[in-house]
Amino acid sequence: MKLRIVVTLKNGVLDPQGKAIQHALGSLGFDGVSDVRAGKIFELEVADSTSDKAIDSMCSKLLANTVIENYRIERI
Amino acid sequence: MKLRIVVTLKNGVLDPQGKAIQHALGSLGFDGVSDVRAGKIFELEVADSTSDKAIDSMCSKLLANTVIENYRIERI
Repeated sequence: MKLRIVVTLKNGVLDPQGKAIQHALGSLGFDGVSDVRAGKIFELEVADSTSDKAIDSMCSKLLANTVIENYRIERI
Repeated sequence: MKLRIVVTLKNGVLDPQGKAIQHALGSLGFDGVSDVRAGKIFELEVADSTSDKAIDSMCSKLLANTVIENYRIERI
């Protein structure tokens, strides 16, 4: 079973990487970029028998820092 | 207009971060994880008038290293 885990910063958490990218795009001449948020994506190949609870646990224990990040699990 | 840019390593390119995560998941007792690939995701808010060509150019010039990475543009 293939999973895609998308980890993004929660609203309200400062994103210096996103800000740097936004400024860099401006410097390169791309106008009209009003916001950039950077996040992470993990593509996992797991055994078909893996439970939803185990998948959720992987995310909250290792893949995302739930204090400042949200995660979304997509089956593909 | 909101865009989501997903940047992933090309097939065949070594992914040490993914390997480290795979081993860490094993150490935490999650069995059956046979592969992990790590990537990046960028959520951009751009002007509605931004052309497809400009968006593609942003990706190839700044957001992705096209030598080792693929990118995918999603409109949301």
